[in-house]
Amino acid sequence: MMDARRFREAAAALVAVGRFCYERGWLPATSGNLSARLDARSIAITVSGRHKGELDETGFMRLDLDGDALSPDVRPSAEAELHRMLYRRDPTIGAVLHTHSVASTVLSRLGGTVLRLHDYEVLKAFPGVVTHHTVLEIPIFPNDQDIPRLAEQVACMLEACPALPGYLIAGHGLYTWGDDVASARRALEAFEFLFECEILTRRMSG
Amino acid sequence: MMDARRFREAAAALVAVGRFCYERGWLPATSGNLSARLDARSIAITVSGRHKGELDETGFMRLDLDGDALSPDVRPSAEAELHRMLYRRDPTIGAVLHTHSVASTVLSRLGGTVLRLHDYEVLKAFPGVVTHHTVLEIPIFPNDQDIPRLAEQVACMLEACPALPGYLIAGHGLYTWGDDVASARRALEAFEFLFECEILTRRMSG
Amino acid sequence: MMDARRFREAAAALVAVGRFCYERGWLPATSGNLSARLDARSIAITVSGRHKGELDETGFMRLDLDGDALSPDVRPSAEAELHRMLYRRDPTIGAVLHTHSVASTVLSRLGGTVLRLHDYEVLKAFPGVVTHHTVLEIPIFPNDQDIPRLAEQVACMLEACPALPGYLIAGHGLYTWGDDVASARRALEAFEFLFECEILTRRMSG
Amino acid sequence: MMDARRFREAAAALVAVGRFCYERGWLPATSGNLSARLDARSIAITVSGRHKGELDETGFMRLDLDGDALSPDVRPSAEAELHRMLYRRDPTIGAVLHTHSVASTVLSRLGGTVLRLHDYEVLKAFPGVVTHHTVLEIPIFPNDQDIPRLAEQVACMLEACPALPGYLIAGHGLYTWGDDVASARRALEAFEFLFECEILTRRMSG
Repeated sequence: MMDARRFREAAAALVAVGRFCYERGWLPATSGNLSARLDARSIAITVSGRHKGELDETGFMRLDLDGDALSPDVRPSAEAELHRMLYRRDPTIGAVLHTHSVASTVLSRLGGTVLRLHDYEVLKAFPGVVTHHTVLEIPIFPNDQDIPRLAEQVACMLEACPALPGYLIAGHGLYTWGDDVASARRALEAFEFLFECEILTRRMSG
Repeated sequence: MMDARRFREAAAALVAVGRFCYERGWLPATSGNLSARLDARSIAITVSGRHKGELDETGFMRLDLDGDALSPDVRPSAEAELHRMLYRRDPTIGAVLHTHSVASTVLSRLGGTVLRLHDYEVLKAFPGVVTHHTVLEIPIFPNDQDIPRLAEQVACMLEACPALPGYLIAGHGLYTWGDDVASARRALEAFEFLFECEILTRRMSG
Repeated sequence: MMDARRFREAAAALVAVGRFCYERGWLPATSGNLSARLDARSIAITVSGRHKGELDETGFMRLDLDGDALSPDVRPSAEAELHRMLYRRDPTIGAVLHTHSVASTVLSRLGGTVLRLHDYEVLKAFPGVVTHHTVLEIPIFPNDQDIPRLAEQVACMLEACPALPGYLIAGHGLYTWGDDVASARRALEAFEFLFECEILTRRMSG
Repeated sequence: MMDARRFREAAAALVAVGRFCYERGWLPATSGNLSARLDARSIAITVSGRHKGELDETGFMRLDLDGDALSPDVRPSAEAELHRMLYRRDPTIGAVLHTHSVASTVLSRLGGTVLRLHDYEVLKAFPGVVTHHTVLEIPIFPNDQDIPRLAEQVACMLEACPALPGYLIAGHGLYTWGDDVASARRALEAFEFLFECEILTRRMSG
């Protein structure tokens, strides 16, 4: 009973954040995926190929953190392992959002391996940041259709920088997370705002 | 009876996609046209000159694939032949969307005859694409008020490249399609996302 | 009776177009003004200083084309003469929209006295245009707080080019019109689309 | 009684302006803060850390202009002193809006200490401006986590230029105000419009 209610609550929170992201153009053409923790060993995650602006509870499935789909008849996103790895590593993570905005896609394809953000007041939206003088370095991984290999690279990076609030995949998009769906959304909004500022700043300086 | 219901369903799906496109600025000033297959020999298509954000069932007419208007008293779009040609060539096509966004208009006027898109994860939204390494080459035809002549050029190109998910007309806009209205919309969203990425990338590199 | 109904209908159509323009950012900070013809000698026009996204019938007043306010206790916009002049000159004009978008403001301040638009399919949205090969030259007048003097300049230009669908005032915005509110809105959408295309094209070519 | 009603009215007006700003991307990731005067000695201001698109009356607290929180159990924004200073200096100020748009953030980080705006008709939206020939110089302060120090700098500037309608903090955002929430919103819309014009003008000229 409690279990079914927890799934419904998680799905409802992700339906709302999906619609929000879709309307801003951050989840075009059924791209991206969204998840939230159900308990220590399982998550709710979007079923592959759904329209993220028109999700309902049937757009989500249960997934064991170690690998098996717990909902029959549906297939998780190919990128589910990138979600699971985050939940396994850090028990405080309650939600993971993977989005595809124009700004994150373009910034991630410019050639660097890191995006440096500094001197923005909005950096204080990330956990643990207390001043705009902070320099936040967001890793940019090359895109890879071999998801387990990519997940391993991300895990290595998180060993070195456990406080990172997110990362980019080149030509692909952003992964970010938080204690719950609201805090993951707060991080996502901060990232997208900073990406747009960074793009505009570079165009005006270039 | 079945026939009337099929027309209503097709019109309802196109009304929704019309409002969606209009709100994003992809169908300004009564431009563009939208169609869906009714059966092997006929389609529903927007009547000429209607506001695409405020369509209802009266904004659509039946059209025979070989040429005659099947709805009395209304005139199809001048570009109807560009729709019909696609449905005649490929019986799996269930919907065709022709839109006029700023991004597609500007990219199509830059002088080339093809737009090359590669290293974008969102390319996987197109049927048959399984990796971001794919290079998608979208043809750009010169604009032409002689629609039968333009339709013939497009048909020739499709003989050579039957898997193409869409094409551009210079200074004019995009034609894209799919098995049904939902999959045509998915392709449209992917195209518009990629056009915006491409424009922004060129401006940051230029 | 008929008269009161005509006023209500005109106001309702302008309320809707006001909300539409405001949401797109074309009427910021109570700027702009909107009018529609009531009969051969009078119009309904926005009262000075109202929020264009939250208009209701009280936001409009009757104005005689030759000069006197017909609604007691309210003041018309300072720019009302620019509306009246258009209705006096051309009895087929049924609505005039004056908007302040970022695109029109920026394009109008770049230094030229004319904006040339050509090779856009959307040019066909303007009355009498049948091919994208048309070259449309939109005059740009210097801004002037002396409205009668500005109105006279516009009138002179319209003597020379009676088919013009609109004009720009530098650093100020666009005036456009049509047979009724729907056709004026169609012209406005076409202009704003073309302004955005033109800005983006110049930035990509520059 | 009157007092409770005044608080509810102020909160309702700020809830609406919060949603408006959030939807335009001017208050991302719980950033910014909004306030309105309750009486000669106190204001209603947003509680720290709330989502500005989903505020309700519980998102606001009473604050004495000289310093003490009048609502138990909630903490005002760290930047509350920047609001209080304005209300103390000028008894005609009825509302203060502090927003974080991409445009204001980027313009404020370009290196200058002042942003000069001129030859825009929309300048007339600011109190006392009667012609587009006006030159408005908006001060840009370096960002500072020491809010009392920053407030003192702003107060000094306002001694010299009492008619200023707002100011920028570098990498941080805009403060603007008005007699009531509606006039503060009018100033905010004018500023954001002018910031977007200025950015686009510089990019086209650069």
